[in-house]
Amino acid sequence: MSNVNALPLLEPEAAEAVVPCCPPLTERPLSAEEAERTARMFKALGDPVRLRLFSLVASHAGGEACVCDISDVGVSQPTVSHHLKKLKEAGLLTSERRGTWVYYRVEPSVVAAMGQMLTAR
Amino acid sequence: MSNVNALPLLEPEAAEAVVPCCPPLTERPLSAEEAERTARMFKALGDPVRLRLFSLVASHAGGEACVCDISDVGVSQPTVSHHLKKLKEAGLLTSERRGTWVYYRVEPSVVAAMGQMLTAR
Repeated sequence: MSNVNALPLLEPEAAEAVVPCCPPLTERPLSAEEAERTARMFKALGDPVRLRLFSLVASHAGGEACVCDISDVGVSQPTVSHHLKKLKEAGLLTSERRGTWVYYRVEPSVVAAMGQMLTAR
Repeated sequence: MSNVNALPLLEPEAAEAVVPCCPPLTERPLSAEEAERTARMFKALGDPVRLRLFSLVASHAGGEACVCDISDVGVSQPTVSHHLKKLKEAGLLTSERRGTWVYYRVEPSVVAAMGQMLTAR
């Protein structure tokens, strides 16, 4: 019988985690690497359906929402799921399965970092 | 002879002017119309080259930059012009021709409105 224990696996999401960065855009020009990393976050909010979904989660009681709460944006459930995945990949949302449903929550540090980039020096 | 005077024409840009909108995303869900209007602004910053160009203008001395100052982002001059046009269309930059050069300036009210949307309630 083997006594080798299974190694804990990294969550694929953790490996892709987006780290907020960068000073206000008025302070100094961004490097290519900084711009690459940060444009992903702005791009995630650059779609009307994603922006509505994000505001639905962000403004929901307790700061989190179940997929069952946020399907009222005029697109199909698979499309909702696709957009929520994009928001997660950009680091703007996190998710957790509890029982039947997946709950989404805004990642405040990432949103705050984006807000700070748009703040005047 | 007709005495009908020519009507003043609206500048094409003025007709397309982007009006900042919307409370913090944590406050209430955006309407479809609000999301449509606002996603354009986030999308404009959702490209690495545009984001670098924007930070170059925003951080330039005096808050404005000539095209001649901001060509150092590794893309051709026509590509720079294309991206600056997109930033103007989204309401994030304004431009003015003075002599040989076109000068770009950040539109602070639009950028502030975007920053405010990302601010926690």
